[in-house]
Amino acid sequence: MSELDIYARQGFAQSIGLGRKPALVMVDFVLGFTDPEHFGGGNIKPAIDRTVGLLTVARARRWPIAHTRVVYADDGSDAGAFTRKAPGLRKLTETSPLSQIVEELRPAEGELIIRKRQASAFFGTEFASWLLWNQVDTLLVTGCTTSGCVRATVVDAVAYNLRTIVVTDCVGDRAMGPHEANLFDMGQKYADLMTSDEVVAATA
Amino acid sequence: MSELDIYARQGFAQSIGLGRKPALVMVDFVLGFTDPEHFGGGNIKPAIDRTVGLLTVARARRWPIAHTRVVYADDGSDAGAFTRKAPGLRKLTETSPLSQIVEELRPAEGELIIRKRQASAFFGTEFASWLLWNQVDTLLVTGCTTSGCVRATVVDAVAYNLRTIVVTDCVGDRAMGPHEANLFDMGQKYADLMTSDEVVAATA
Amino acid sequence: MSELDIYARQGFAQSIGLGRKPALVMVDFVLGFTDPEHFGGGNIKPAIDRTVGLLTVARARRWPIAHTRVVYADDGSDAGAFTRKAPGLRKLTETSPLSQIVEELRPAEGELIIRKRQASAFFGTEFASWLLWNQVDTLLVTGCTTSGCVRATVVDAVAYNLRTIVVTDCVGDRAMGPHEANLFDMGQKYADLMTSDEVVAATA
Amino acid sequence: MSELDIYARQGFAQSIGLGRKPALVMVDFVLGFTDPEHFGGGNIKPAIDRTVGLLTVARARRWPIAHTRVVYADDGSDAGAFTRKAPGLRKLTETSPLSQIVEELRPAEGELIIRKRQASAFFGTEFASWLLWNQVDTLLVTGCTTSGCVRATVVDAVAYNLRTIVVTDCVGDRAMGPHEANLFDMGQKYADLMTSDEVVAATA
Repeated sequence: MSELDIYARQGFAQSIGLGRKPALVMVDFVLGFTDPEHFGGGNIKPAIDRTVGLLTVARARRWPIAHTRVVYADDGSDAGAFTRKAPGLRKLTETSPLSQIVEELRPAEGELIIRKRQASAFFGTEFASWLLWNQVDTLLVTGCTTSGCVRATVVDAVAYNLRTIVVTDCVGDRAMGPHEANLFDMGQKYADLMTSDEVVAATA
Repeated sequence: MSELDIYARQGFAQSIGLGRKPALVMVDFVLGFTDPEHFGGGNIKPAIDRTVGLLTVARARRWPIAHTRVVYADDGSDAGAFTRKAPGLRKLTETSPLSQIVEELRPAEGELIIRKRQASAFFGTEFASWLLWNQVDTLLVTGCTTSGCVRATVVDAVAYNLRTIVVTDCVGDRAMGPHEANLFDMGQKYADLMTSDEVVAATA
Repeated sequence: MSELDIYARQGFAQSIGLGRKPALVMVDFVLGFTDPEHFGGGNIKPAIDRTVGLLTVARARRWPIAHTRVVYADDGSDAGAFTRKAPGLRKLTETSPLSQIVEELRPAEGELIIRKRQASAFFGTEFASWLLWNQVDTLLVTGCTTSGCVRATVVDAVAYNLRTIVVTDCVGDRAMGPHEANLFDMGQKYADLMTSDEVVAATA
Repeated sequence: MSELDIYARQGFAQSIGLGRKPALVMVDFVLGFTDPEHFGGGNIKPAIDRTVGLLTVARARRWPIAHTRVVYADDGSDAGAFTRKAPGLRKLTETSPLSQIVEELRPAEGELIIRKRQASAFFGTEFASWLLWNQVDTLLVTGCTTSGCVRATVVDAVAYNLRTIVVTDCVGDRAMGPHEANLFDMGQKYADLMTSDEVVAATA
């Protein structure tokens, strides 16, 4: 029996569907995650290119928009277990070029910028409060990496009862095995998988 | 370049190491997750068998011990997006046989039993408070599924700055592909991977 | 200069106002908090009587409705600092008469029952997730005690960006000094104060 | 029967006591809270003066030390219900003089600086994670205002099972009535009240 069969027999992978009020989040599309010498590579650049189009639509439709950055204090006072596992993260400080959002997706006035230190955009941030304030019921998740901060954000999003959509052409990872494996997990258990074209059409 | 090479070049997979005060958590080792007709199958039964030994050691050494169960209200008043994605979860109510902890790991007096409705043992629970009260710095994670509630618990554990250990022979999944893929992700980014024998030896 | 003058000069006590989708929460209206021999007394009984009417309206208008209870494990495994400060709380177990919701406000099918161990209805619970799922933007807070679990719930509610209303005739306390002092604090900084009649009229 | 009698009869106000590893937090000792034209006045200045001595001891004993600041985005993208209630808070931006920590308590290298937007130092921050990483079991709370951010921080601290101490001469408020009323509430239900001299002596 294939993995898909096992999950199908147990009733996973039902569609949650779109709600009435979507928001767009772009997870960690910062310079350090575009550069294979730091945390990047794989299909992250194409994911950024595809997200440019979705962001244009989101702005035209006045959806709430959020960007995330990983930002640690210059003196490491807020570093901990995660930076012990991946010490390079400590380079991502407020003014480091590595932690600046990529030019193509530069935040506009009024868009939320979430500074975080953990994988999930929700952990130790006010992302949930902002979603409540904006009466969002549907979260469109883009960003990188699929197997890291995107996955962690998606797991928290569904726990907060958001209809969670992973925009498949707008998420990327440094390596394709984890990218595919995490799309599988998320599609089975936490989120609906849609392309950006499908999202744009379904929310028109 | 292999995936391991990519991660190695970017500095992932450093060891966090053990601290001074471990706790043991057993995630969702309940009947519904041992039965392939519900949410079980794969290597979950062997993981339970291996956890019996680790639990015996944990009790002998007086480590804080926690069990988790998924428990929804009988009337579905606390169901939401997650149960929309996997509707079978709603069967897991307080008195359902499916949500009872397996006999081999039956909780003893004074062990914490966490009722949760989301993947992570931390979300909407007081697990973090209990860990602080017990001055725990190291979390030994066992349970099922590796690609579901174990992974979600591990991501939150490292975010709370716990030295997080995935006990590799004590975690199981309904399907082996996701099991292996998630061990890879966790070992690279969030946790140290150790066998139960290694844990027992290293904490002696 | 009076206290009101100080707060007024600094710009506090602006009205947040009602939104479009209210929910009603009844905090800890359980037997132990009606009995002066345990945690009750003062104006808690009258607050329950007034809440009966508001609950009837809430049900007629199909607002989402939540009740909270303080519930500790029988073996004290989830007790901690709060129960060190007020040890009597440990009597509030799942089956104790003291922790049962009062007959006048008995929960109906489909109403959320939140089991909590701390002052706030949000801490270690999925109350925020439930509010998001129900697309609530306004929280009507009733219950007891004003200076304890009501205040803590209100502070978290406004932090989650809910338009928060303290229903003044539907909150009570064991002692009147703290009751009044906390109404003052909440009205200045966190919530709008309205009577149940005002709430019913304004949401008609 | 006096209020103290009511609380005493119900078993409140037991001492939690000090643990083995204290941390010091200074809540919102920023310029805007020292100035009666903004959010200050009352006994906040004397509280700062007293905290200088406690901070010196904390540094000498190498306790973990945290400062908090209220910081909103320049464009108001993270403002919400709280700033609707008290609009002046929006002036507290990263570079505003009003949100700078007072000179007497200027943070030293390695001390945590928490940027927050709500009353509690825990809400939407990684304060709990930092406390876990530093294996803290006792939180010494100083700052302002007693009836606002100090109270909110204390309620969350005890919920996280920290032995929580309000350092009575090191907390201040713009108005004395709320200051006293909140010391009463905290001392009865959430925290032990100690002077800084008592803290220094008891932890020597």
